[in-house]
Amino acid sequence: MAPGATSSIDVQPAAPSFADVLDAARCIRDHAVVTPLLESPALNTRLGGRLLVKPEMLQRTGAFKFRGAYNRLSRLDQTARKRGVVAFSSGNHAQGIAAAAQILGIPAVIVMPADAPAIKQANTRAYGAEVRLYDRYREDREALAQQIANERGATLDRSYEDPIIIAGQGTIGLEIADRAAELGLILDTVLVPCGGGGLIAGCAIALAEKTPTTDVYAVEPVGFDDTARSLASGQREHNDGETKSICDALLVPTPGELAFSINARLLKGALVVSDDDVKAAMVAAFHHFKLIVEPGGAVALAAALSGKLDCRDKNVAVVCSGGNVDPMLFCDVLRG
Amino acid sequence: MAPGATSSIDVQPAAPSFADVLDAARCIRDHAVVTPLLESPALNTRLGGRLLVKPEMLQRTGAFKFRGAYNRLSRLDQTARKRGVVAFSSGNHAQGIAAAAQILGIPAVIVMPADAPAIKQANTRAYGAEVRLYDRYREDREALAQQIANERGATLDRSYEDPIIIAGQGTIGLEIADRAAELGLILDTVLVPCGGGGLIAGCAIALAEKTPTTDVYAVEPVGFDDTARSLASGQREHNDGETKSICDALLVPTPGELAFSINARLLKGALVVSDDDVKAAMVAAFHHFKLIVEPGGAVALAAALSGKLDCRDKNVAVVCSGGNVDPMLFCDVLRG
Repeated sequence: MAPGATSSIDVQPAAPSFADVLDAARCIRDHAVVTPLLESPALNTRLGGRLLVKPEMLQRTGAFKFRGAYNRLSRLDQTARKRGVVAFSSGNHAQGIAAAAQILGIPAVIVMPADAPAIKQANTRAYGAEVRLYDRYREDREALAQQIANERGATLDRSYEDPIIIAGQGTIGLEIADRAAELGLILDTVLVPCGGGGLIAGCAIALAEKTPTTDVYAVEPVGFDDTARSLASGQREHNDGETKSICDALLVPTPGELAFSINARLLKGALVVSDDDVKAAMVAAFHHFKLIVEPGGAVALAAALSGKLDCRDKNVAVVCSGGNVDPMLFCDVLRG
Repeated sequence: MAPGATSSIDVQPAAPSFADVLDAARCIRDHAVVTPLLESPALNTRLGGRLLVKPEMLQRTGAFKFRGAYNRLSRLDQTARKRGVVAFSSGNHAQGIAAAAQILGIPAVIVMPADAPAIKQANTRAYGAEVRLYDRYREDREALAQQIANERGATLDRSYEDPIIIAGQGTIGLEIADRAAELGLILDTVLVPCGGGGLIAGCAIALAEKTPTTDVYAVEPVGFDDTARSLASGQREHNDGETKSICDALLVPTPGELAFSINARLLKGALVVSDDDVKAAMVAAFHHFKLIVEPGGAVALAAALSGKLDCRDKNVAVVCSGGNVDPMLFCDVLRG
């Protein structure tokens, strides 16, 4: 199916449709985990509402990225598969691409920032991919990846610009809506971590169709609120490139073009959380859900727990998007 | 339904039947989490087999105990509910009973060892239960609980001697078998943590009916291998009461009478793991599954990862039974 061909949502032609998300769900079914929706009665009491956590650290590779990556790579033809794929990623998408490529027998090169967590670099290599490091603050990762792809005749993966990847990430929104319906719940709000914006764009497409009254908010770290500012101004804004954040998975310069075109139409708004909000959410996930959440994966939970979103008398689902955190950093956060 | 009334398994009259496990599954459906079965391709490669983890730390209260507790307490009549319930537990069953009692509006007193992890004591109180501490090495917890129950006319909960509780825990075996069937897998082996033996007894009843060719093994910590020795001798053996273990959830003096009568008939055998095996499994769960497993909850995973069970060319499911561990202990384990 050509992405966008059957779209019922009025976004630019290249955007995936709800049908593409359904198609992605069928495509990844045999390899991806259908993650549950978890609740903590203690947190519900504290918030005065009902908080539902979508634990995507339980996904294959420890983050949601496998969904879009497998959906994308499984559609390459035999010639393209032999030539391989080149992707750039701070780590979680790298692992998703590497794991999907390994299943499908496709050679993969991943361009990763040299300061990406060691665990993400090691895991990416463990899935059989070749890792090429670059300087996050001085080099252009897209140009470097394009150059490698050109040299090899390989497919360049562009993550949050790719409608097939966005459709794959959207299966999370589909699962949230389906499980909420099983529980007899009408969701007031869904909060989703936002870097380039592909995850939330896919989720928003699924949620707009399945539960159109639900408000979808992006959540970003302080200093990387490019989507929040872009939604306000109506055009893609850039981050200053100098701010540091604990949320390594979300540190992009600007929203993806395709992702933002979807998000500008479908999102209710964006929320911003601090590193301290994120650390508190990681500790809460330990105590109340027994889950390892990485900093970038915890921003949506952080928005709910810190009161950036008022959850009183509401049904709020939050995506915890990954759990690939170095153990020493995790312990530092846990020890406070 | 009277437990045992329709039993197809020839065990003593009071044992729950497979029909009781099915009935328990219906009873707890609206309150318990149906936990997934998780896999790590990296661990599968390392073991040369297929390892499926049942993550019961994702269950309400952070351990499997809620299943049996809710199944039990929801069947009390109105008079009994008003008089309340008294239970004794090192912590996870305490939280299960307290949480189920809170949902049902039943007063609960929990007799806990004074050296139970602070987090388990605090959580039990947070569910609204009254906590009475005792000295694990000098006092008889059953006698103390019986005395309190007598004073109040309350129901005394006896956990692994109670067929309705055992049937509730057995829903884990049911879910494992159902999910394995969905995946098209025939399970060679299921490994289950074993303290008093109620969890594994319930699971064995469900597995015997659903997948009769599957071998079910108990896993115990060194020094608390009472079920292993009891299976060998054919009668309930005692632990020396002096050995220490990191596995606080599994430190019982001897197998439960009812649980052992079931286990003696249905188990293939028992495996024993060291504290070091357990710590390695907790670290592996962090890296490969992003899950917090408490020491006692990790023994079955430890048996698979340490080679106590050879997983080569086998489909092996392991129950990770809980995740209620003090954060400082968890970090000590993670830091090695």
